[in-house]
Amino acid sequence: MPKISQKGREMPASPIRKLTPFADKAKQQGKKVYHLNIGQPDIETPEGMLNAIKNIDFKVWAYTASEGTLSYRTKLTSYYNKLGYNITPDNIIVTTGGSEAIIITMLTCLNPGDEVIIPEPFYANYNGFACQSDVVVKPILSYIENGFALPAIAEFEKLITDKTKAIIICNPNNPTGYLYSPEELEALKQLALKYDLYLFSDEAYREFCYDGRTFISPMHLNGLDENVVVLDTVSKRYSACGARLGCMITKNKNIISSALKFAQARLSPGMVEQIAGEAAVDTPDEYFKKVNKEYTHRRDVLVQALNKMEGVFCPNPGGAFYVVATFPIDNADKFCQWMLEEFEYDNQTVMMAPATGFYSTPGAGLNQVRMAYVLNADDLQKAMVCLEKALQVYPGRVG
Amino acid sequence: MPKISQKGREMPASPIRKLTPFADKAKQQGKKVYHLNIGQPDIETPEGMLNAIKNIDFKVWAYTASEGTLSYRTKLTSYYNKLGYNITPDNIIVTTGGSEAIIITMLTCLNPGDEVIIPEPFYANYNGFACQSDVVVKPILSYIENGFALPAIAEFEKLITDKTKAIIICNPNNPTGYLYSPEELEALKQLALKYDLYLFSDEAYREFCYDGRTFISPMHLNGLDENVVVLDTVSKRYSACGARLGCMITKNKNIISSALKFAQARLSPGMVEQIAGEAAVDTPDEYFKKVNKEYTHRRDVLVQALNKMEGVFCPNPGGAFYVVATFPIDNADKFCQWMLEEFEYDNQTVMMAPATGFYSTPGAGLNQVRMAYVLNADDLQKAMVCLEKALQVYPGRVG
Repeated sequence: MPKISQKGREMPASPIRKLTPFADKAKQQGKKVYHLNIGQPDIETPEGMLNAIKNIDFKVWAYTASEGTLSYRTKLTSYYNKLGYNITPDNIIVTTGGSEAIIITMLTCLNPGDEVIIPEPFYANYNGFACQSDVVVKPILSYIENGFALPAIAEFEKLITDKTKAIIICNPNNPTGYLYSPEELEALKQLALKYDLYLFSDEAYREFCYDGRTFISPMHLNGLDENVVVLDTVSKRYSACGARLGCMITKNKNIISSALKFAQARLSPGMVEQIAGEAAVDTPDEYFKKVNKEYTHRRDVLVQALNKMEGVFCPNPGGAFYVVATFPIDNADKFCQWMLEEFEYDNQTVMMAPATGFYSTPGAGLNQVRMAYVLNADDLQKAMVCLEKALQVYPGRVG
Repeated sequence: MPKISQKGREMPASPIRKLTPFADKAKQQGKKVYHLNIGQPDIETPEGMLNAIKNIDFKVWAYTASEGTLSYRTKLTSYYNKLGYNITPDNIIVTTGGSEAIIITMLTCLNPGDEVIIPEPFYANYNGFACQSDVVVKPILSYIENGFALPAIAEFEKLITDKTKAIIICNPNNPTGYLYSPEELEALKQLALKYDLYLFSDEAYREFCYDGRTFISPMHLNGLDENVVVLDTVSKRYSACGARLGCMITKNKNIISSALKFAQARLSPGMVEQIAGEAAVDTPDEYFKKVNKEYTHRRDVLVQALNKMEGVFCPNPGGAFYVVATFPIDNADKFCQWMLEEFEYDNQTVMMAPATGFYSTPGAGLNQVRMAYVLNADDLQKAMVCLEKALQVYPGRVG
């Protein structure tokens, strides 16, 4: 029998989905499972976006241009220019979800063996995409004590070698919810310019900034046009994860022309999705205001409940819809699995993502767990009651 | 400024799309361009498939399971088992188009530096996917004189090294239209077993077999379960190229579990597409009969017209909707570009794909052109009149 490749074997399993079999089993046993493990919002997709699907009137479901339809890219341009990105449709390549934007950007900008620095904990699938692209991830620790702020620039500089080609930030951050400050972005800019590095900016959660905070993108910074690639998706913005519609944006023409070859090889992004994506840009502001208010409320409920539990610490994040919290436990992987396999309170339990999967440094995040506040506040409250009970009786409780 | 990677630079440009700027210019000049360059059928997508989109009734456009919904995979299983594949839903991973099925299969089964043998001319994007996966393509020439039949097994054996891990066939073939015989498939089976090779079977054109010929898949052969991966797509079957919905199928459990990690990293295939794909399986037989009759007619029109032209030779292919023909020309790339830039007959011209892009052996296919018969017979006739005139006056005519 032929052998499966090393690459196939070495590809990391998704930390978000690896406990799914245990959750399925718990459900089969009749347990109610609160899903805080995955960033699948329960928020409704904007009506205008769904109506655009229902109103399709073509006869042939055809390929579109590999870079996306001009019509959709033009509409997207209007959205980004409202944010002050100052781009043209030629600066955009439409992708199959944010995932493909990340893969194509890595394949385009980085050679096999090149290194990319990423503050950790980070979005776990960067590891998978790096594995696919033969890129080496150099993690740089951020700390829960200061809410996962950007690590000191001196720490970045310690990691920079001849192989270092890029930095990836996710802002607001998944999994920490941290929103980078203007000062932090300015520091990253100086670093990118000093060492001639790409700055990849994953902005999947751009719309989710709380307490009146302002989102700043590297696209807002002068003098970085050649260095910046924005990685984006409609998944979270419009609660349309299943659309698999994203894009990469850069003013660097060489990146666009090189990335286009990868885009052409896979022929086209989805056609119906681009029609829906175009309609989505017209989503009224009230939609976002309502959603923002809802997430702020949920965050408050979650963070307050967590910090009331003995031995638990959870920073109050400025954006996205995740928190990472420290629990008084021996091992987050064991704990999260135990929650599904062994624990129940009133026939309920909670599924969470062990934070270890978001770290690449061995042993880091061992007592941390990521939670997505994608359930309504009532369910969140119930999940927190459940969690508190669980922490009281967990055999691996420490401290 | 940071440097774009070698990989990005070395990624081959699509031979199908690289003449697009010249076609756009021709159209701007008011020329009518007959597009025989790309496999985008004009055939209508089945009504049931489009209605499934119009009738969606969900409120949240959510991720699906990374391997595809159980509902869609179950329905697909019924489709494949009617063909005699004898599979279960667990043997399927749903992908974003056939493209992603090819990429994930390469990443899963092949290590960087591994070699894959492909009869050429072959679907040009295999080169791009191989580049992405750091896989080395070893082409093996097939010849227009015998209609591009499978090369002799002895020729395959000459290419086999320690690095050889797989063979890719596309059946019926893009770009040649050749349909492999049961004897040819049996020979490939013996070869795969003898040398412990994977056999990747790209079956995008399975439904398009003419003159009463029968399609045979490696899935029909006994004793190959561990070696075979079928690469499939709804693009051509239901004229739904823009759906970007495909799948990989294998009875090799190690491949499935390893491929699933790549599928999980990119989270999910499209949700709406899977709903539409499920409805598509119920497309009535008459749809296919009608389409088959239409393509047979077009093929006859095209092949007859081509063979009547002086110095032109075109085999009569058994499947797909492409032909590769020999023209009395110096250079197919120059000729196809000249057709768009310089030539017009009655203010019309024809866009075709130079066959050179489908060969990986340098210099091969220099006087060959691929045409897709994706236009109605009337337009095909007009395109052929145009082409005949062009060949008469082309400055690089030879022979």
